[in-house]
Amino acid sequence: MSADDFIVTPWRVEGKIDYDKLIKQFGTEKITNDLLNRVTKLAGEDHFMLRRGIFFSHRDLKTILDEYEKGNKFFLYTGRGPSGHTHIGHLVPWVFAKWLQDKFNVNMYFQLTDDEKFYSKQDLSLEETKKFAYENALDFIALGFKPENTKIIIDTENIQTLYPIAAQVAKKINFSNTKAVFGFTNDTNIGMIFYTSLQSAPCFIEDKPVLIPLGVDQDPHFRLTRDVAPKIGKLKPALIHNIMIPSLQGPGGKMSASEENTTIYTTDSPEVVKKKISKYAFSGGQPDVEQHRKEGGNPDIDVSYQYLRIFFEPDDNALKKIHDDYKSGKMLTGELKEILIEKINNFLKIHQENREKARDKIDKFLFEN
Amino acid sequence: MSADDFIVTPWRVEGKIDYDKLIKQFGTEKITNDLLNRVTKLAGEDHFMLRRGIFFSHRDLKTILDEYEKGNKFFLYTGRGPSGHTHIGHLVPWVFAKWLQDKFNVNMYFQLTDDEKFYSKQDLSLEETKKFAYENALDFIALGFKPENTKIIIDTENIQTLYPIAAQVAKKINFSNTKAVFGFTNDTNIGMIFYTSLQSAPCFIEDKPVLIPLGVDQDPHFRLTRDVAPKIGKLKPALIHNIMIPSLQGPGGKMSASEENTTIYTTDSPEVVKKKISKYAFSGGQPDVEQHRKEGGNPDIDVSYQYLRIFFEPDDNALKKIHDDYKSGKMLTGELKEILIEKINNFLKIHQENREKARDKIDKFLFEN
Repeated sequence: MSADDFIVTPWRVEGKIDYDKLIKQFGTEKITNDLLNRVTKLAGEDHFMLRRGIFFSHRDLKTILDEYEKGNKFFLYTGRGPSGHTHIGHLVPWVFAKWLQDKFNVNMYFQLTDDEKFYSKQDLSLEETKKFAYENALDFIALGFKPENTKIIIDTENIQTLYPIAAQVAKKINFSNTKAVFGFTNDTNIGMIFYTSLQSAPCFIEDKPVLIPLGVDQDPHFRLTRDVAPKIGKLKPALIHNIMIPSLQGPGGKMSASEENTTIYTTDSPEVVKKKISKYAFSGGQPDVEQHRKEGGNPDIDVSYQYLRIFFEPDDNALKKIHDDYKSGKMLTGELKEILIEKINNFLKIHQENREKARDKIDKFLFEN
Repeated sequence: MSADDFIVTPWRVEGKIDYDKLIKQFGTEKITNDLLNRVTKLAGEDHFMLRRGIFFSHRDLKTILDEYEKGNKFFLYTGRGPSGHTHIGHLVPWVFAKWLQDKFNVNMYFQLTDDEKFYSKQDLSLEETKKFAYENALDFIALGFKPENTKIIIDTENIQTLYPIAAQVAKKINFSNTKAVFGFTNDTNIGMIFYTSLQSAPCFIEDKPVLIPLGVDQDPHFRLTRDVAPKIGKLKPALIHNIMIPSLQGPGGKMSASEENTTIYTTDSPEVVKKKISKYAFSGGQPDVEQHRKEGGNPDIDVSYQYLRIFFEPDDNALKKIHDDYKSGKMLTGELKEILIEKINNFLKIHQENREKARDKIDKFLFEN
């Protein structure tokens, strides 16, 4: 892997990602200003994640909007592979999906792929991934979804509904296709090989167009789904992609639920958050205060600044002030980290309360076969 | 494929099968006289399908008997791929399984693999294979099984139970394994690739040893299951194999539900049976009566005789008389066919009555997730 190379697959993200290159590599479309303005107009307001390019790419978003303007509603679908507790990176597409749901008044399906994580992680049992699925569901519900228009699908619990749909998809995908798209080899287990058809299934759970907000690393699954859709008489799913959320240890790779010190979990205490950010958050600052005051920091690579930009500081003016102060050297890395720690802990205080309340509500959200 | 070559896979049977060679090729064990006598002693009587070598091969049948003698019961499992109506060849392992169930007083699971036939047959929809599954279930029930100790599994209806078990198996099988055992290629669809793990699942549905009576062409599936079983802390399934039932058009290949004129369906009318046997049943007789009287017929290749031997004439003395008369030329092909037509029609008269009665009982047999 040369200096500017990177790898993005559903199971591996490495290197410093050049998102313009990735758009070309994946064959997706950049979200232009025109498209952004159209979403904003239909939604009645804009969203900082669109404005700031956190959601940067799409497939067929225009078609979704065309149909919506004609009065044909879409539905939303996203999900999570439950290999551990939820971290703050996972919340990005969920929060954005919630905003879309509220503004466009549409149904939402959230898939927890306990089987996938069992197939892909040598050391995880199906009992463990299912346990994490229920834990992750609490985080999703805590963001304020309503059971009236939001259903949670857990693969092993809802296989009765998913499998007949997945079978239609699976018949149209061969091993070569999965090799080309996921890089599977002869050593890949047959659960993993079949699995992509189960991630396709919720796309066809309603007879409407679907829009999927998701991390761009998951795009390959739906590339296959989009190829298959017309062959089984269905509409191609539309996608809107967010960038990878960097790990605490900096750009290159994404935040991973399985590496504890690179990750802020939604269940972390204020003390743990403080410690992780202080100790591990990759800094764009200078080696000492004197040099920092003189030369300034680099917010583009500073993880604390990036977390504010991506999630924790929706106010553009406040963010710009932090950016400029850090860049000029007026703000020290320690001060920037203090701001982020406070923002995260304020968010998590409310989130953790809602998360506990979600335990009593979860049954209302579970999809019934 | 040279003269004495043959191919036996779950989806393709061709050539004149040398069963001794097949035992070596598959790595199974021949049912010896000792083993046959042991089954007979434990069962309290013998069965003509064992005596005549219709069931000719096994894996771990000795272990099943050892455990049974210690008081540890096994359970039975067999099945059918519902690609069409049931033909009389399908009944062979079912009738034998019923005998085993009665004599050993054990539970029985019958799997109808509607998904497999959907994956493997380009022109069949899942609705069609499921419809055939329910039709095939009637034939199974018609043989006299009791709902108290017999459950029918339909893959797409019982996937909620099967999938978590299949997932354990699927994680331990890679694409190479399926290539080696089934001859899959890069063009094989991913439903087909995954499917073998679903045929494995019923092996582990009870925490007891399982014995599977089945056509020897299905052995490859359970070769994989047997490799996986110890890796997931389970007992290896034991198998008892029957020979392939020849098509009407003669030795080489098996009776196929998808080729109408080579097959007697359980739903055929007496007239249709008469016509099919008279017109299509491959004859071991001579070209004309004079030559037949002089040289005699060859019962070894005569399909009508073989059907009597395999299924329709359990009485050894009666069968021997037919054999000798045909071989000597005393019995003409037309006379032999008359005997078979009457036997089949007598059998089907009762079977078809029971089949209709089964419609009211089927619900009691369906496995509940």
